[in-house]
Amino acid sequence: MGVLTDQQKARFMDLLWSIQSRLLAAFEEIDGKAKAERKSWERGEGAGGGTMGVIRGAIVEKAGCNVSAVSGPEYPAIEGEHKGKPFWAAGVSTIAHMYSPMAPIAHMNVRCLEVGDTFWVGGGADLTPFKAFDDDTKAFHAALEEACRGESHGTYDRYKKWCDEYFYIPHRKSIRGVGGIFFDYLKGDFDQLLNFLGKVTSAYCTVYPEILKKRVDEPFTDEQKDAQLFWRGRYAEFNLAWDRGTRFGLMTGGNTEAIFVSLPPVVKW
Amino acid sequence: MGVLTDQQKARFMDLLWSIQSRLLAAFEEIDGKAKAERKSWERGEGAGGGTMGVIRGAIVEKAGCNVSAVSGPEYPAIEGEHKGKPFWAAGVSTIAHMYSPMAPIAHMNVRCLEVGDTFWVGGGADLTPFKAFDDDTKAFHAALEEACRGESHGTYDRYKKWCDEYFYIPHRKSIRGVGGIFFDYLKGDFDQLLNFLGKVTSAYCTVYPEILKKRVDEPFTDEQKDAQLFWRGRYAEFNLAWDRGTRFGLMTGGNTEAIFVSLPPVVKW
Repeated sequence: MGVLTDQQKARFMDLLWSIQSRLLAAFEEIDGKAKAERKSWERGEGAGGGTMGVIRGAIVEKAGCNVSAVSGPEYPAIEGEHKGKPFWAAGVSTIAHMYSPMAPIAHMNVRCLEVGDTFWVGGGADLTPFKAFDDDTKAFHAALEEACRGESHGTYDRYKKWCDEYFYIPHRKSIRGVGGIFFDYLKGDFDQLLNFLGKVTSAYCTVYPEILKKRVDEPFTDEQKDAQLFWRGRYAEFNLAWDRGTRFGLMTGGNTEAIFVSLPPVVKW
Repeated sequence: MGVLTDQQKARFMDLLWSIQSRLLAAFEEIDGKAKAERKSWERGEGAGGGTMGVIRGAIVEKAGCNVSAVSGPEYPAIEGEHKGKPFWAAGVSTIAHMYSPMAPIAHMNVRCLEVGDTFWVGGGADLTPFKAFDDDTKAFHAALEEACRGESHGTYDRYKKWCDEYFYIPHRKSIRGVGGIFFDYLKGDFDQLLNFLGKVTSAYCTVYPEILKKRVDEPFTDEQKDAQLFWRGRYAEFNLAWDRGTRFGLMTGGNTEAIFVSLPPVVKW
């Protein structure tokens, strides 16, 4: 049963754990004081679980990085060819909110799903600045473009466009931030796909902390701070009202605590 | 076309405007300083519009009361017998958030829909205290029970149960607050239904300000205030992820500014 070997799954999990370690260490370094708290959870009866990591500090106001790996006899698809088949699903997801309105929110996720006798990977990364700096936007996009270079399953341009489409907020009539990449249902050779996910996540783990280090000490006004809190509403709205991953988690009784890790620490409406 | 006369519609609108006036005046009195701001909007081309009323103060942190009346050639139902028929829809909706964690959030809405050659009314009211006081819960329920007394279309018990079912938050596995009443698709004699809505809304306009006056000056701790901000997340989550009215508004490009009037002024996650 299944197409992935235990060794392949273990290698994928190694990637996820390394991303979590790297990001939480980077956030601790940027904050300089707050320490990440890790909390494990289990679905019970050998069905997997995960580890949430969250850091709440004066500079890194709230940053989370969650790793999970779950499995079961029936894939909980609402419909379609995969519904009801045995599945294994693992992924890492991170969203970070800095106190400073000068420092952007960013999100990254990669996941691998094995359902019945097929598997695929998906993921993405996007940057959402309250105050956009051209340098940051260019650096973020350039890092992701480099990670996509030479891949045969799809191009950077395609994944960039996919991101703009996915993170569109219909009721605000605008995209969530300045974009990034998004991809899903990538099938093919496991080693090649794992290598691609390694490049994407490594690019993110490098470029995002670099951007934060440049911005967290920038001066800002009380008006900008207040405006940032209202602007964060868009992020909460998108996640709660539109994001398929979040909604899937809420509807299927997933680990809601992990979902709330991603919501902004303080929001005004 | 339509079953309601212009005079009937005008009488329904009179009820809505009187509720808005009464509630905004009550909130101004409770706050003692802040004044309600009214803002009208139009859908364009004779398709109706509405008036948002919102007050933001030190005591009444954010309270909104919106009246709208819209019409069009095709009812925007997703499916069902009413899809695509000429419609007229009017309603009032209010949600209030006090600064004090001792004073409850409350919500009330009544609406009348005419689609093709049928019409119905719906609505409800519910109380959501951070710190529940038995006296307040009893007073709120008693006022609504009295408003339902002698009605032939349904009983208080039925509408109370409907409310508990509607305001259930699946991912939190709890109801939103201490309940109230909810009803929809009530058909019958217009005068009788208008009289019922008048009783329900009048009960709300009396009992909720009375509860607030008792609670806004109660002492509270910094810990309670902070906990209230996290607790408000449930309210935002319910409205954005689950509430059919809000989601219908977001999905159909309704007046999102009016929707945001209902979201809590400050939320923590």
